[in-house]
Amino acid sequence: MSNSREEEWSNSTLDLFLDLGIGSRPGLRARIEEGLRDAIREGRLRAGARLPATRALARDLNVSRGTVVQAYAQLAAEGWIAGRRGSATAVVFDGEQGGGRPSLREPGAVRWRFDLRPGRPDASSFPRAEWLRALRRALVLAPDDVLGYGSAQGQLALRNELAGYLARARGLRVRADSLLVSTGFTQSLGLIARALEASGAASVAMEEPSMPLHRAIVRSCGLRLRPLGVDAEGLRVRELERWPAVDAVVLTPNRQHPTGVTLSPRRRSRLLGWARAHGSIVVEDDYDGEFRYEGHPIGPLQSLDPASVVYAGTVSKTLAPGLRLGWLALPERLRQAVVREKERADWQSGALEQLALAELLRSGAYDRHIRRMRLRYRRRRDLLLDALRSALPGVELAGTAAGLNLLVRLRDATLEAEILAAASSAGIGLEGLVAGGYYERSGPAGIIVGYAAVPEHCFRVAAEALVTLLARFLGRARSASA
Amino acid sequence: MSNSREEEWSNSTLDLFLDLGIGSRPGLRARIEEGLRDAIREGRLRAGARLPATRALARDLNVSRGTVVQAYAQLAAEGWIAGRRGSATAVVFDGEQGGGRPSLREPGAVRWRFDLRPGRPDASSFPRAEWLRALRRALVLAPDDVLGYGSAQGQLALRNELAGYLARARGLRVRADSLLVSTGFTQSLGLIARALEASGAASVAMEEPSMPLHRAIVRSCGLRLRPLGVDAEGLRVRELERWPAVDAVVLTPNRQHPTGVTLSPRRRSRLLGWARAHGSIVVEDDYDGEFRYEGHPIGPLQSLDPASVVYAGTVSKTLAPGLRLGWLALPERLRQAVVREKERADWQSGALEQLALAELLRSGAYDRHIRRMRLRYRRRRDLLLDALRSALPGVELAGTAAGLNLLVRLRDATLEAEILAAASSAGIGLEGLVAGGYYERSGPAGIIVGYAAVPEHCFRVAAEALVTLLARFLGRARSASA
Repeated sequence: MSNSREEEWSNSTLDLFLDLGIGSRPGLRARIEEGLRDAIREGRLRAGARLPATRALARDLNVSRGTVVQAYAQLAAEGWIAGRRGSATAVVFDGEQGGGRPSLREPGAVRWRFDLRPGRPDASSFPRAEWLRALRRALVLAPDDVLGYGSAQGQLALRNELAGYLARARGLRVRADSLLVSTGFTQSLGLIARALEASGAASVAMEEPSMPLHRAIVRSCGLRLRPLGVDAEGLRVRELERWPAVDAVVLTPNRQHPTGVTLSPRRRSRLLGWARAHGSIVVEDDYDGEFRYEGHPIGPLQSLDPASVVYAGTVSKTLAPGLRLGWLALPERLRQAVVREKERADWQSGALEQLALAELLRSGAYDRHIRRMRLRYRRRRDLLLDALRSALPGVELAGTAAGLNLLVRLRDATLEAEILAAASSAGIGLEGLVAGGYYERSGPAGIIVGYAAVPEHCFRVAAEALVTLLARFLGRARSASA
Repeated sequence: MSNSREEEWSNSTLDLFLDLGIGSRPGLRARIEEGLRDAIREGRLRAGARLPATRALARDLNVSRGTVVQAYAQLAAEGWIAGRRGSATAVVFDGEQGGGRPSLREPGAVRWRFDLRPGRPDASSFPRAEWLRALRRALVLAPDDVLGYGSAQGQLALRNELAGYLARARGLRVRADSLLVSTGFTQSLGLIARALEASGAASVAMEEPSMPLHRAIVRSCGLRLRPLGVDAEGLRVRELERWPAVDAVVLTPNRQHPTGVTLSPRRRSRLLGWARAHGSIVVEDDYDGEFRYEGHPIGPLQSLDPASVVYAGTVSKTLAPGLRLGWLALPERLRQAVVREKERADWQSGALEQLALAELLRSGAYDRHIRRMRLRYRRRRDLLLDALRSALPGVELAGTAAGLNLLVRLRDATLEAEILAAASSAGIGLEGLVAGGYYERSGPAGIIVGYAAVPEHCFRVAAEALVTLLARFLGRARSASA
């Protein structure tokens, strides 16, 4: 892990320099300085981030080492960075206060010292240079009609690549024909809900706990919501029998969000049996299935019954939520209705980003990025688990085998609220099961800790800050008691 | 117009070469050849397109003229292009049959010889190089949190630029606060309709004729639709009194689609008076207001009453529909409800494209592109009008003063169907008022001719083909008779 900072350099900022052609034009020293100043000013390089060794950067940029040394010296003189003999040069100025050229950062948004909220990948690891390369290739190769009004179902080039990827990497039984390109799970859920409603569906079952936005989406499409409990085997499928008629079930079988439970094989076959018997639809939200660190990966429900299951995937956890790209694998009986809803929703997803993602899949860059991030997130999880278990021996954790977050179970909602308040004062972003609105009615309290969003170089400090905070509340007693 | 082809070169394909760094790396001749081969193979350069003179291309690419001459010679030997002494070198091979590297073009889509359908801009003039530069700048400058879950209302950087642009170029009374970034008018309409429905609205009035998709969107949101007629002054505002309670009116006041009528000042004040009296909302769809060739530009309704009017704009006509970017200027009373619907629809629009558009607005490239296209479309309109009027003296045309299409009024729906059938056989894409579903019930027949989508270099041929076709049906009699 010692060179993780430099690894990150070579993956993003450095490649952007290369893309800017910094290696082959005049004014190199000034441009290196400017690039670094901007990166610090805008928060892409934060205080403590180590810069690459001058020799290494000179080699990568194909400039003389003297040029880099001079650039570093200038920035040190200006107070942005500092180097000591025998240790790496590092950023000392924490951006944003510096003024200068206007920042693109949204003001008003809460700025956490450590953002440990769930559901967010490490944005600082987004492969900017590779995405730019893919966009460029799309812009160069795309015939003009790609820029016009295109297929609501999505660019065929992307659906072809996705079909191959999903079969290979996720075990789906899928063809390009049955895929629809959406802008992420938020849209995907709305499209399905509307298509179901238009075809006469009246009620949809959802997990309890689950994301409040997802419940609001289903309700706003005019469907009645039926909450189903979750236990150690996942969704309590038997509770479906409580309700008179349920037209669809929306669930996260690979890793129940936010409890982290995987739906057991027994429950899987029972759920699919129920769906077939009732002609109902199962919506499988596979939001972060790419990240599993322990145990055998469990195939998607979709592979067991492609005629009953709608499978939903996204790049929001693998690449970045800001891209707004996702997909649905649809049973034939729903395909046309969902495509029509997509057309009514926004006609089609953005064409160039679709082609860029197709290129990332084609070139293998998407797979490589996921492998890299899986290793990185796994190391973070290990570090966090070790720290939590050694400082808080009685703490009850869940959902640690996979994904980008884990759950700290708590005795009650009061304790949850106290911890959230203290975290907020300390600048630590967290979510609570109760406070976050995950329950329709009520349920056990807990803190959901996302360990992916914090940039790599400050993850260790963030984990320590979290453990220190939790120890104030959970240090002596068990975290959850019956 | 004689150098229009070369102008296009310098605007798109040529800049892509520059972006690829073709001017500063080895293997120049091979790269020029490959770039041209790809452009022809993929249909970006079609048969008949003239290539730049070798001297001009050499200068623009900053290479020796000999390099370009050799590249042209090689391509001529391979049969892609041909040059004769005294005339320009031109493409002779019509792409797509060539095989080689896979095309990104969607199969299955209808390929018109001449696409004269309305509502489509010239995709071959999309400023690819400038868009790529803007995306690159966004990717270099954007802080990490731009890639995360952002504001549903849209990136502030874009809303700031848009507010300035809309006030300056379109006369809106708008602040960044009141803008929402959508993915185009399709989504914008759905967001407003849902926000209205959620706040208790029950019925919406729409123009007759109007886009069938727009009516379907409003209906699918659970709203009742009230059609209002259109005459020479635009929307018949008085017909609003027919209906018991209308919560909103959706219209195209600047240029009624598809008849091209501009809403008269008298009707404007009557409409806004009605809206204020009833507390109703007016939705102003300004889909192509950037393009006016005659008469005084008429300010938007929004500027007369920002508290009653929702203004909707888009890049679908100014840049390309495939980008999927649009915006809404919202009265304060609707803002939160529409932002909430956006969050439920797709959380937010793609962040990088938002920043790229902000950059195009900031740098002035957006204004320059619109000015360039306005001149180009105006020349096309002049050419088309001259050709239609001289070949078909009795033809009744409408909507010729602005926009990207005009209307040929016809005697009846049978004639419309006959012309559409003949056009289809001739590979000419057109739309009919009746056949296109523009009426809820029924109305006068007509052919809508879009003159923007055909690439610049074959517009003259396309216009001739259209006139020849129409002359078969309209050559003797008047096109429309009472």
